[in-house]
Amino acid sequence: MKIGIVGFGNLGKAVLSLAQKNSNMEVVGVFSRRKIEDCNVPCYSIDDAKKFKGKIDVMFMCGGSERDLKVQTPKLANYFNVIDSFDTHALTLEHIDDVSKACSKSSTSAVICCGWDPGLFSVMRTMYSSVFENIECFWGKGISLGHTNAIKKVDGVVDAKQYTVPNKKAVALAKNGNPVTIEKHFRLCYVVANKDKTEIANQIRNIPNYFKGQTTIIKFISQKELDKKHNTSMHQGNIFASTKDSNNTFTSHFEVKMTSNPSFTAKILLAYANAVMKMQEQKIFTALTPVSIPPIWLLNQPEEEVIKHLL
Amino acid sequence: MKIGIVGFGNLGKAVLSLAQKNSNMEVVGVFSRRKIEDCNVPCYSIDDAKKFKGKIDVMFMCGGSERDLKVQTPKLANYFNVIDSFDTHALTLEHIDDVSKACSKSSTSAVICCGWDPGLFSVMRTMYSSVFENIECFWGKGISLGHTNAIKKVDGVVDAKQYTVPNKKAVALAKNGNPVTIEKHFRLCYVVANKDKTEIANQIRNIPNYFKGQTTIIKFISQKELDKKHNTSMHQGNIFASTKDSNNTFTSHFEVKMTSNPSFTAKILLAYANAVMKMQEQKIFTALTPVSIPPIWLLNQPEEEVIKHLL
Repeated sequence: MKIGIVGFGNLGKAVLSLAQKNSNMEVVGVFSRRKIEDCNVPCYSIDDAKKFKGKIDVMFMCGGSERDLKVQTPKLANYFNVIDSFDTHALTLEHIDDVSKACSKSSTSAVICCGWDPGLFSVMRTMYSSVFENIECFWGKGISLGHTNAIKKVDGVVDAKQYTVPNKKAVALAKNGNPVTIEKHFRLCYVVANKDKTEIANQIRNIPNYFKGQTTIIKFISQKELDKKHNTSMHQGNIFASTKDSNNTFTSHFEVKMTSNPSFTAKILLAYANAVMKMQEQKIFTALTPVSIPPIWLLNQPEEEVIKHLL
Repeated sequence: MKIGIVGFGNLGKAVLSLAQKNSNMEVVGVFSRRKIEDCNVPCYSIDDAKKFKGKIDVMFMCGGSERDLKVQTPKLANYFNVIDSFDTHALTLEHIDDVSKACSKSSTSAVICCGWDPGLFSVMRTMYSSVFENIECFWGKGISLGHTNAIKKVDGVVDAKQYTVPNKKAVALAKNGNPVTIEKHFRLCYVVANKDKTEIANQIRNIPNYFKGQTTIIKFISQKELDKKHNTSMHQGNIFASTKDSNNTFTSHFEVKMTSNPSFTAKILLAYANAVMKMQEQKIFTALTPVSIPPIWLLNQPEEEVIKHLL
């Protein structure tokens, strides 16, 4: 599989590192708006990407959701099969529509909204909804890539880290199959700023879909302190599902834990590359999200083998 | 959705009870080889089932794997869309082939090997395999329907219960991401017998695919004691997945717990009935297992709604 990578932030770097260790993959190039220094494969301007049409099987779109993927994924789906990790829930239907149009016009395939949430968690929520009545998701304690990027794009922010922290009392309620009526999380932001802090804090609190309406604690610290104390991209997530029927109780729990969020997300994107190839094989020229992907498409294995060893 | 139920053991009864509470379902009849007394819907001989062709949307096949489903599911797939919980791993490919042939001949659709394992666990193993290197499954402590039925079919056995019990040391190894090199489970069988116990124990230990080659403890007890102390169909299962990459560790855990195994299995079969209807809609006339089913097919909801609320 010949792959390209668009965007060379944390996720792009993680995809590159994993793809280079994968004997089934060949990295054709990294594409970015910026000039890239620290890269051991050919690097190009994103404007030159279309010249590689026919030379790349799957393009990994590794930018941020709102500023990058919203525009780049539909654009590049005109030339390539694409995978992205779009995670702005409120804009998802619109994004699916935009990418699908490009795919159907250009006979390309896309899997979008990949990662662990959206992604694995979306699959779990969907399966759980078919069987359980109560489903509660918790994120963290951990760094949210999407929320951290959203802060970084605020004017005057030099650097930032955002921890999503679950409320322990809410977790206890969900674990015991009780309705969760209290706030489930708070958002803890460490921000390095070079401008008016009150204005920056105000802007962060009002970023729609990410912070607006949520308990958000903002702490301004120095770059040195951020680098020293918050040099992590750990994360975790939990889903608790339950149903009580006359005499019976059914519960389920799903947990993921990672020391690096971008590396874990990259692992999942690589798995969904197999799904994209399967879509091409079956001439499915549209954009699908993980909830519409048969699990078996994630594996580059004959169906018989999967059934023998995994069913 | 008009449904029929073939077989009226624990699973058939659980499917009936759930279907009657489901406002989208109408139970047309229960079909059995035996005469049924305790049933509040029309009951028919299984030989008369084919007369209901065109009057039943989905037939729930609720017998035991080896003696019932192996023959009944492909046979009835000639007349109906079917769902079964076939769980004899070694015979699965053959079963898929048998049912698929009937489906493609008769333009019917089938989802087979449904339940929590095979079923939900198969989906998890498949998804986990695409991301994690080490995957360990544990079952119990709990009653295995398949193993209990396998014992009950031994000549001279009046009644039985089989507990699958995980080895705690093996669970601890898996939890910590270590390879599990010791035996993971033992099988604890409580048997009421009316014939030579040595011969029965010997037969149980040699049932292929279920007990042969596994640590099996067999205790003969009275019907009274079985009814009093083992009147349960509780079960649980756990999957631990992990990968260590240079500096990173990724782990995941999936758990299901139920006070009634047949009721939980029935809940899952009902969810997959939506998938069968989706296959009909899309003219997919074959037998699929849960690993080949897009999760969204489990829900009787428009795609847009699922993406809005669950992605």
